[in-house]
Amino acid sequence: MFSAAIDAAQPRLCVPPNLPDRPKGRVIVVGAGKASAAMARAVEQHWDGDLTGLVVTRHGHGAACEKIEIVEASHPVPDAAGEAAARRILDMVQGLTPDDLVLCLISGGGSALMTLPAPGLTLADKQAINRALLRSGANIAEMNCVRKHISAIKGGRLAAAAAPARIVTLLISDVPGDDPAVIASGPTVPDPTSLGDARAILEKYGIAEPQVVLDVLAREYSETPKPGATWLARSETVMIATPQLSLEAAATVARAQGLTPLILGDAIEGEARDVAQVLAGITRQMVRHGQPIAPPAVLLSGGETTVTLRGQGRGGRNVEFLLALALALDGVMGDVFALAGDTDGIDGSEDNAGAIITPDTLARAAARGLDPKKSLGDNDGYGFFEALDDLVMTGPTLTNVNDFRAIIVGG
Amino acid sequence: MFSAAIDAAQPRLCVPPNLPDRPKGRVIVVGAGKASAAMARAVEQHWDGDLTGLVVTRHGHGAACEKIEIVEASHPVPDAAGEAAARRILDMVQGLTPDDLVLCLISGGGSALMTLPAPGLTLADKQAINRALLRSGANIAEMNCVRKHISAIKGGRLAAAAAPARIVTLLISDVPGDDPAVIASGPTVPDPTSLGDARAILEKYGIAEPQVVLDVLAREYSETPKPGATWLARSETVMIATPQLSLEAAATVARAQGLTPLILGDAIEGEARDVAQVLAGITRQMVRHGQPIAPPAVLLSGGETTVTLRGQGRGGRNVEFLLALALALDGVMGDVFALAGDTDGIDGSEDNAGAIITPDTLARAAARGLDPKKSLGDNDGYGFFEALDDLVMTGPTLTNVNDFRAIIVGG
Repeated sequence: MFSAAIDAAQPRLCVPPNLPDRPKGRVIVVGAGKASAAMARAVEQHWDGDLTGLVVTRHGHGAACEKIEIVEASHPVPDAAGEAAARRILDMVQGLTPDDLVLCLISGGGSALMTLPAPGLTLADKQAINRALLRSGANIAEMNCVRKHISAIKGGRLAAAAAPARIVTLLISDVPGDDPAVIASGPTVPDPTSLGDARAILEKYGIAEPQVVLDVLAREYSETPKPGATWLARSETVMIATPQLSLEAAATVARAQGLTPLILGDAIEGEARDVAQVLAGITRQMVRHGQPIAPPAVLLSGGETTVTLRGQGRGGRNVEFLLALALALDGVMGDVFALAGDTDGIDGSEDNAGAIITPDTLARAAARGLDPKKSLGDNDGYGFFEALDDLVMTGPTLTNVNDFRAIIVGG
Repeated sequence: MFSAAIDAAQPRLCVPPNLPDRPKGRVIVVGAGKASAAMARAVEQHWDGDLTGLVVTRHGHGAACEKIEIVEASHPVPDAAGEAAARRILDMVQGLTPDDLVLCLISGGGSALMTLPAPGLTLADKQAINRALLRSGANIAEMNCVRKHISAIKGGRLAAAAAPARIVTLLISDVPGDDPAVIASGPTVPDPTSLGDARAILEKYGIAEPQVVLDVLAREYSETPKPGATWLARSETVMIATPQLSLEAAATVARAQGLTPLILGDAIEGEARDVAQVLAGITRQMVRHGQPIAPPAVLLSGGETTVTLRGQGRGGRNVEFLLALALALDGVMGDVFALAGDTDGIDGSEDNAGAIITPDTLARAAARGLDPKKSLGDNDGYGFFEALDDLVMTGPTLTNVNDFRAIIVGG
């Protein structure tokens, strides 16, 4: 199931069936995100005809391309390489005709990787506003509204630059709700928020500097392209991979194995150990009462949990979740197995994608002298599952549709 | 749905259909727990014939009875009143014959209310061990094992005292798993754990005092009645109210209203605000993808969440849960309504059972100048929902099957 979830988000598998028809004119491939190089490679390998382009990806996420230039830049803190790449991308889509096609490849991380401050601003100005918004308690929607209005490429501005060419954006989503206007701050998607909204947000939170940012927001030409703008009519977005599509792929595998899948959500969030406790409660209900789904069945969920660090151990949110799940399932009689992993192949900053638990996880831990409560207190899920030889290793997958969790209750 | 959940656990409704047949001999009614007086009253009102007895309940949980004596005692810290009542209960069931019936009425809180230390021990000795176990990190099963072996009435000893009479125990469960051996430490239920287990637990956690407790655990006559003991063959337990039965009652109401019920679990636990985030994730999935159940539908769950106090506000875990749920559902388009409440009628230490949220909760809060994030930071769910006039008041229900949560997604 985990393999199927990752495969469903692999550019080599999800890009080719979604390529648009060949246009009369030129083809320019641009894009940004952690998966953009792998997406570019998939385009090159399946495109029938000439093309040129540039995509920007994270350091270490490159892929061998012949026609499309791959630029590596810094993430999550933007750098000059990403800024220079964003400027070149804007230049590339200038002067196109209605016969030309811009193929835009967007995935998570694209916002930081393809950064271009509005005229008059520097990267430092943008970062100062970002920090102020983070401190203020503004929500994600409010932060994105301001960000789009101080960018030269986000919030539909890349599409505006490419008009009158046809624009097709292939998207891999790692955001709850899969809103194309949110992924990488929607460079080819019209922005429903306004300059006035952006100004009101800064006022609401009492953010009054840097002054140059306020100056930019005071100028009407800083307004983003709006939904309904005629020159955006030829811009379309295609969601080629999402957490939900990956969960559905896993559900298909489950059914083929005789397990009834129940998808709880593609964006389940919360502190990892509490999410584990809730899912353990649902698992107990399956074992005791055959609800919300009768075994043999599998509970599937996606989305990113969080970990409040208390200890000095190793491991990401998926091993933390599994360790808490194993403890919360202590005493549950039944064939309960679980896997949790990051679809990008890296759980936190270690070399594992995730791990598994089995009905005898705690017994095997005890036999090896491991103390799961202590491991959890130390945030040492990696050490715990490494000692049990139960880590799941995939290597970096070069794509990302967030975490994948499966809890199997046998019949 | 909430009313149906409470009604399903009301002694006046769930006791009468579960009363045993009238015996040839005498009928003695005993019991302990927060609902025991209300249970006794229901017995009196529906029993055809003579009876006598004594039950112990929490201060303020009394109910008018004519034949069964009601003793009020301290909870959660045991007191002399509860100890004296326990001794009298043990005395009452002595010298019975096989023709006699002991009707035992057990509900949550019974363990603290009906306390009788083993011969040679004082209440203070028991409390010293309890504190040491709490500090040690021992789990609930381990604590209960030790507690039963230093009690004169728990772990089946009341049933042993009542033999050879027939014993019928009516139980209202407030513990995850509804194990009769766990509710009120199972005074009429054989104990699967042994004296050796109890000694091993104290050794495991390095608990070496009070010495008198170690002395009691060293004597073989301190062993609890074991499953299979022939004189326990005439002891039966009937689970008359449980969190699950209350959720099923709510589900029946839901179906009658055209809502598909999905019971997630009868013992969902975790930090209230994180449980809210997970259930909000499932709710979003219903709205966006019609999973795990297609609207119009209702997600039902029971069990007690926890609240880590950070602020100085008022309110229990149910208003905390709802406040976090309202915030987590911000931006969800759809008819989402929710209620959370304690089936005992008291959420925390205020006068409300719980509260409700509606699709316009945050909008109404903003219109009144309320800041839901600040209220949550202050743990002030009571103040927040009081200002919205959205508290749910039932008064004390004198029964308890834990919390009830319903999240409705309209069609």
